[in-house]
Amino acid sequence: MSGVFGIFTKSGELDVVREAYFALYALQHRGQQSCGIAVNDKGKIMCHKDAGLVPDVFNEMVVNHLSGGQCAIGHVRYGSYTPNSRTDAQPLVAKYPKGMVAIAHGGNIVNADELRDKLHENGAMFQTDSDAELIAYMIAKERLGSNSIEESLLSLMKVLKGAYSMVVMSPKKLIAVRDPYGFRPLCMGQKDGHYIFASESCAIDSIGGEFIRDIEPGEIVVVTNEGVKSYKTDLKVETGRCIFESVYFARPDSVIDGSSVHNARKEAGKYLAKEYPVEADLVCGVPDSGLDAALGYSIESGIPYGVAFIKNRYIGRTFIQPTQGERETAVKIKLNVLKASIEGKRIVLVDDSIVRGTTSANIIKMLRDAGAKEVHLRVSSPPFKHPCYFGTDVDSRDKLIANRMTQDEICKYIGADSLGYLSIENMLKTPVGCKLDYCYGCFTGKYPMDIPEE
Amino acid sequence: MSGVFGIFTKSGELDVVREAYFALYALQHRGQQSCGIAVNDKGKIMCHKDAGLVPDVFNEMVVNHLSGGQCAIGHVRYGSYTPNSRTDAQPLVAKYPKGMVAIAHGGNIVNADELRDKLHENGAMFQTDSDAELIAYMIAKERLGSNSIEESLLSLMKVLKGAYSMVVMSPKKLIAVRDPYGFRPLCMGQKDGHYIFASESCAIDSIGGEFIRDIEPGEIVVVTNEGVKSYKTDLKVETGRCIFESVYFARPDSVIDGSSVHNARKEAGKYLAKEYPVEADLVCGVPDSGLDAALGYSIESGIPYGVAFIKNRYIGRTFIQPTQGERETAVKIKLNVLKASIEGKRIVLVDDSIVRGTTSANIIKMLRDAGAKEVHLRVSSPPFKHPCYFGTDVDSRDKLIANRMTQDEICKYIGADSLGYLSIENMLKTPVGCKLDYCYGCFTGKYPMDIPEE
Amino acid sequence: MSGVFGIFTKSGELDVVREAYFALYALQHRGQQSCGIAVNDKGKIMCHKDAGLVPDVFNEMVVNHLSGGQCAIGHVRYGSYTPNSRTDAQPLVAKYPKGMVAIAHGGNIVNADELRDKLHENGAMFQTDSDAELIAYMIAKERLGSNSIEESLLSLMKVLKGAYSMVVMSPKKLIAVRDPYGFRPLCMGQKDGHYIFASESCAIDSIGGEFIRDIEPGEIVVVTNEGVKSYKTDLKVETGRCIFESVYFARPDSVIDGSSVHNARKEAGKYLAKEYPVEADLVCGVPDSGLDAALGYSIESGIPYGVAFIKNRYIGRTFIQPTQGERETAVKIKLNVLKASIEGKRIVLVDDSIVRGTTSANIIKMLRDAGAKEVHLRVSSPPFKHPCYFGTDVDSRDKLIANRMTQDEICKYIGADSLGYLSIENMLKTPVGCKLDYCYGCFTGKYPMDIPEE
Amino acid sequence: MSGVFGIFTKSGELDVVREAYFALYALQHRGQQSCGIAVNDKGKIMCHKDAGLVPDVFNEMVVNHLSGGQCAIGHVRYGSYTPNSRTDAQPLVAKYPKGMVAIAHGGNIVNADELRDKLHENGAMFQTDSDAELIAYMIAKERLGSNSIEESLLSLMKVLKGAYSMVVMSPKKLIAVRDPYGFRPLCMGQKDGHYIFASESCAIDSIGGEFIRDIEPGEIVVVTNEGVKSYKTDLKVETGRCIFESVYFARPDSVIDGSSVHNARKEAGKYLAKEYPVEADLVCGVPDSGLDAALGYSIESGIPYGVAFIKNRYIGRTFIQPTQGERETAVKIKLNVLKASIEGKRIVLVDDSIVRGTTSANIIKMLRDAGAKEVHLRVSSPPFKHPCYFGTDVDSRDKLIANRMTQDEICKYIGADSLGYLSIENMLKTPVGCKLDYCYGCFTGKYPMDIPEE
Repeated sequence: MSGVFGIFTKSGELDVVREAYFALYALQHRGQQSCGIAVNDKGKIMCHKDAGLVPDVFNEMVVNHLSGGQCAIGHVRYGSYTPNSRTDAQPLVAKYPKGMVAIAHGGNIVNADELRDKLHENGAMFQTDSDAELIAYMIAKERLGSNSIEESLLSLMKVLKGAYSMVVMSPKKLIAVRDPYGFRPLCMGQKDGHYIFASESCAIDSIGGEFIRDIEPGEIVVVTNEGVKSYKTDLKVETGRCIFESVYFARPDSVIDGSSVHNARKEAGKYLAKEYPVEADLVCGVPDSGLDAALGYSIESGIPYGVAFIKNRYIGRTFIQPTQGERETAVKIKLNVLKASIEGKRIVLVDDSIVRGTTSANIIKMLRDAGAKEVHLRVSSPPFKHPCYFGTDVDSRDKLIANRMTQDEICKYIGADSLGYLSIENMLKTPVGCKLDYCYGCFTGKYPMDIPEE
Repeated sequence: MSGVFGIFTKSGELDVVREAYFALYALQHRGQQSCGIAVNDKGKIMCHKDAGLVPDVFNEMVVNHLSGGQCAIGHVRYGSYTPNSRTDAQPLVAKYPKGMVAIAHGGNIVNADELRDKLHENGAMFQTDSDAELIAYMIAKERLGSNSIEESLLSLMKVLKGAYSMVVMSPKKLIAVRDPYGFRPLCMGQKDGHYIFASESCAIDSIGGEFIRDIEPGEIVVVTNEGVKSYKTDLKVETGRCIFESVYFARPDSVIDGSSVHNARKEAGKYLAKEYPVEADLVCGVPDSGLDAALGYSIESGIPYGVAFIKNRYIGRTFIQPTQGERETAVKIKLNVLKASIEGKRIVLVDDSIVRGTTSANIIKMLRDAGAKEVHLRVSSPPFKHPCYFGTDVDSRDKLIANRMTQDEICKYIGADSLGYLSIENMLKTPVGCKLDYCYGCFTGKYPMDIPEE
Repeated sequence: MSGVFGIFTKSGELDVVREAYFALYALQHRGQQSCGIAVNDKGKIMCHKDAGLVPDVFNEMVVNHLSGGQCAIGHVRYGSYTPNSRTDAQPLVAKYPKGMVAIAHGGNIVNADELRDKLHENGAMFQTDSDAELIAYMIAKERLGSNSIEESLLSLMKVLKGAYSMVVMSPKKLIAVRDPYGFRPLCMGQKDGHYIFASESCAIDSIGGEFIRDIEPGEIVVVTNEGVKSYKTDLKVETGRCIFESVYFARPDSVIDGSSVHNARKEAGKYLAKEYPVEADLVCGVPDSGLDAALGYSIESGIPYGVAFIKNRYIGRTFIQPTQGERETAVKIKLNVLKASIEGKRIVLVDDSIVRGTTSANIIKMLRDAGAKEVHLRVSSPPFKHPCYFGTDVDSRDKLIANRMTQDEICKYIGADSLGYLSIENMLKTPVGCKLDYCYGCFTGKYPMDIPEE
Repeated sequence: MSGVFGIFTKSGELDVVREAYFALYALQHRGQQSCGIAVNDKGKIMCHKDAGLVPDVFNEMVVNHLSGGQCAIGHVRYGSYTPNSRTDAQPLVAKYPKGMVAIAHGGNIVNADELRDKLHENGAMFQTDSDAELIAYMIAKERLGSNSIEESLLSLMKVLKGAYSMVVMSPKKLIAVRDPYGFRPLCMGQKDGHYIFASESCAIDSIGGEFIRDIEPGEIVVVTNEGVKSYKTDLKVETGRCIFESVYFARPDSVIDGSSVHNARKEAGKYLAKEYPVEADLVCGVPDSGLDAALGYSIESGIPYGVAFIKNRYIGRTFIQPTQGERETAVKIKLNVLKASIEGKRIVLVDDSIVRGTTSANIIKMLRDAGAKEVHLRVSSPPFKHPCYFGTDVDSRDKLIANRMTQDEICKYIGADSLGYLSIENMLKTPVGCKLDYCYGCFTGKYPMDIPEE
């Protein structure tokens, strides 16, 4: 997924690096592998980035050192730690004849290999496998025949295939770009008159800014000292916003493309209650992303809402492993069952999805060990069966339990008394107020665009 | 508050240091200033401790380095970072003629100055202001005329005044000690037959152990290779378990002294609904400690339960400060209002306590800015007016808003439409099943024991 | 200057990363700003690099993590810490259609701007200002029409102007390249039959290897599983080995281009004694690079050799600054005068060069304060007047004291009783046995090649 | 050995912490295990200490944080890293009824066990095995019946047996104490009128101060706002300054007890040349501590002085280990032979001592491999045969090669052509100008005081 952020201060009175820091902190749920901030001080771009969480990569000294510019962009990258985490960290800084440019990109370019090959034929070399570097190259190429970077970006929209919501910082401009399908969210806000772009509105809120509007699919928004300009691609495609953003990725306090994430999840819970009613004593969610849907299920069903699990608040750090053979302990360290709530009760447990099934099985076992009489699992999305090509790292097709088992078999495997998945039809109704169509290829195998052969 | 932990493995087949690590991680909410683990390997005690959170102070290398012993104790210390955080970190390791001893202590000794003076008169010197060092000294003193360390500890119970729940590790014993009033919780569990002591049962759960029972006030439990022995002081006092453990300190999944913390808070919410009913559209809690009481209020009142705030999941780290004059931002970084839930609604907001009133005022303003029509604050404890002498660091008397203002004045100050505090009478009913009497001096100014003049 | 290293193990029985680590440690004097190691494990290149000294950037965990490959290259970069130190660190890893390549380069490309401009015209973008990235690009370009990487490198030799001694690691080859002028040293060795390249022979010694020979100017040496091949450019130029390598840069235990560095310095001292004899009691060197020449002066003059200064052995780390206005202290922290040696004596002090003159003035003052009756400064190189374009970072022309003052004026400024510089003529005789001609443009302003206008 | 430092500024115009930092940096050769600084700010003592070298334990932030007081003491501790390095770090801070006290101690108390036992009998407990803690205790005890801390210290001198050169900081005083035998050096200086104490004069020099005089054996010097006072014990003993300070420990630029360390070593070399003359081409020292004696040997013998080994300048850090079975490499990483100097020559190699013989054997082998025709080892101290009880950590008696072999056997074992040790008689003449008698028990087994049975 990744999260991006950009801020531009005309007057220079905002500390753009500090704002970026706090905004990235609010977007941390979108990526824990690496993070970075690039700042533009009179055309000179400085960048600090590394593997790790925002509060680990940045400290007061680093922030002070970067401070001072007029514009900053930031990035958090999705994924777990790898040896290349430092290399792959963004923003990427590129040097063009017209000056320095920095790019923070979220999404996935599906024709990256093809584009890279073409550039290679022309003598290009790459230092990473990241899309951001590819895009920086493409811009360099396009820029040769363009009058402006925004013109280059408009041309690029016809060539780049896939998902990209990005912020670009050139010597005098801050630019937000969202692909024509609008796979990933991207929005615009302001703080005291200074413009902000962010993957999610919660980042704008967290620094005390105000949400203005979403960037439209296929739109390019440019901020300069002169003000804001918008450009729109003439490419006509049906939009395909990732439905999983509402189901799982985004923070519940974000409003994306006109729809509250929290409400979408509550709606999902309500539809689930209609599709799969059951007689029970308590409705509980798996923290954190199942909680909202559980609340919706409770409201619709009239079954009281309760708490089944307490999550350790101190998550998100490099972590010592439990001794081998203690897989179960690994779950307990993060999640403890609230026995007093559960004992002797028939539980409706709501989760956002089932991937491999092992975590669900563990969690249901914990409930039973704590004395639950029945456990009915309700999943606030349809069976997850197909790979995502647009920026969601999921297990390969083989590992997805829904590809190997029927719903009944899964129910038995995870040890539930009953199992219900939200229907695709109802899922698509949950982001009330959303003005876009969705990509839900991970449930159907049909994607908004053709996918190059692997 | 502080949190303590101890584990003893007869056979040596458990990695006691790793277990202690995960247990402390589960007790992290009881103290973020410093932490440490001491391990006993055939009478030789090694200790690693420092300022910082558990996952910051310990890494795989340190854990491996300590690993190997038969018994370990651990500690997390309450408070924010100070220059002396490293020095004050526990466990404290002491060398006696009979061998090495380690102590992890939670609580506060009220006659510490007096005891220290007496020791000074006899030629003692101290290296810290910590109670743990004082207690180690007292044990050394008592040990001269005693047959065993447990005998010394029993003698000490007559001299030490105040709150102490501690674990002590001697060359061949693991000992749990709880003061005669039982101010702070302390319980016993087992994992695969190996004994465990912990401040809260959630620590036992988190490592896959089983709760056995609470240590009784005035009880000393000794674990050796020969098994478990219990000793009880002949001091007769009325117990005074800190009621704030149920209201705020403890993790909701802990069961302390026979009572579920989650349930106690839910009960508090129910009583609040009876004492201060109001017509409203939604009941919301301030995360995390207000959530359970909000659920109780909702159940009792029939007003739907909802979510008003999303808390950033990545808390608990050294943190860059927002630029000056942005106090409000500091709250927003941690807590964002969920506008979609709130807009146009009459909100019952439930919090566990009001200390200085500024945070409450900020939070209520956030709700109003998000479009709440009315905000009724309900507090799941009585007005907080008096200092605590038993291990809770609270603002001095002057800063407590309940000392300076009437309930109506507070309501106006924080900008609520109405304000209701739980009565003392009902609060005392909330820890259903608790077998002890309570200390609730912070609400009444009357304490279970005389407090030495300051 | 920078230092480079490469090692290739046919059989895989050497831990190439560990060898690279120790070799870089031996080359640390060539660069303290940043360092890195890249390792090739069956075509997959992993790289770790960062700002800092070798023992700070690498630890056991990192070394273990990288270990396992067949070939490794390493780099230490000259210069002091800057915000871009991490970005500029080498080796640089590039991805070509033929696979991954890593480059560690020392020197300076004088036509870099021109070459970069040409690539820009063709759509290239850069991420750094480093020559290594430019060279990686150039290789990518050349590689399109070449049959092998060594063919590309031979073509490049006609285009790249300036100093470069580099090691290149491709999926199956380890390649050493030295520019046709041979500005910077580069040599070849072996350890247990495994081939090694290094900037200086001391790196080969330090890992227990054996020196084979120097790489010749304009030579490309390729190591593969099949053995070693050498290619030579047909470009005919007069060689221009940097004379300052002998005077100052290289470690005295290195033998470069057939000449012992230690002996060259001793020779310089002898010539100095002939050129500038003086009646005195003791000959002392400024540690460390003046010591060898002092010994030579002593031998030639018959004046006893002595020790005037003790250097703190714990140098080379990030360092707290003395309080302001204590410039003099900054010198004393590193260098303390040995009063007992000096008192009442007439001292011949030998240093390798005078740059701005302030350090010399400080040092001479220290001798006088310690009771030296006379101080005669002898400099083992000619007056330093012109910039270096071939990899030596020197103060700009204005700051060089020899540009602003006559020899007499300098003598007065630094407070010496007499001052003598080694003549160019004699300097050129000092690297006895060296088979190359020299670049000594920093003394004459005449360089072996035309320098592009700045 | 350890190194201590203290500084007192009447006016507060010196940054005492920064001065202590640089002074400890100059004393780093006396201890690399741990270090620390304690500062007294109006009676409140803050302390920062940890395992590691001075520049690793302290950074700008820590120094700024401590800065501000009137008086500071510092300590570097001898030894290699152990799990208890942090715990054992000094200064030790003690709290007495009269206020806080900090102690930095170098040496070894030989009756420590006995004294600790007595305190234990009285109810004392200890947290470390360090002498500093014991001394702090003893002071607390003595202070009860004394009028001042200096009076307590004078009483202590009759009880403490062994070596101690220490600085003590009480709320209003800075005190230097040297044991009646004067085992370890301790001297006094001033900087701009502010008083300084240090283990060696090089620390005073390094911060731009001036040496005043040595603290006498059995003397206590007290600095307050009122000035300096000196007290002398009435205990009459023959002094026993450790001769090894001159031979090996101290920095050559220090002057201890009236004698230049550099000169003492040069003298040792001269006597060696008289005792063990040999026909040879070059005299070389083993860096760093053999260099001065080699110079003396060269002067006396007329054989030219030369350089045989280059030592890596970047020492003193946590260090990756070479792969197993590469013991020899471990030496080469630190020390490289200068082949060009050595080849074909008959070498006199001067070292300060032989402990186990393995290093000497390695070094001589390196010379032979480099082409030395003959290697004659000259040792600037007598055969090292007995343990030291006064602060020098040496290998146990069994490992000392001089206990197991005759001089001839050793010569054969290390592979030298001839071997000569300095005689005791001549060694005692080397510290020219020293006003004290020496302890040289490590050569004779006879010590200035009785040693308690082990």
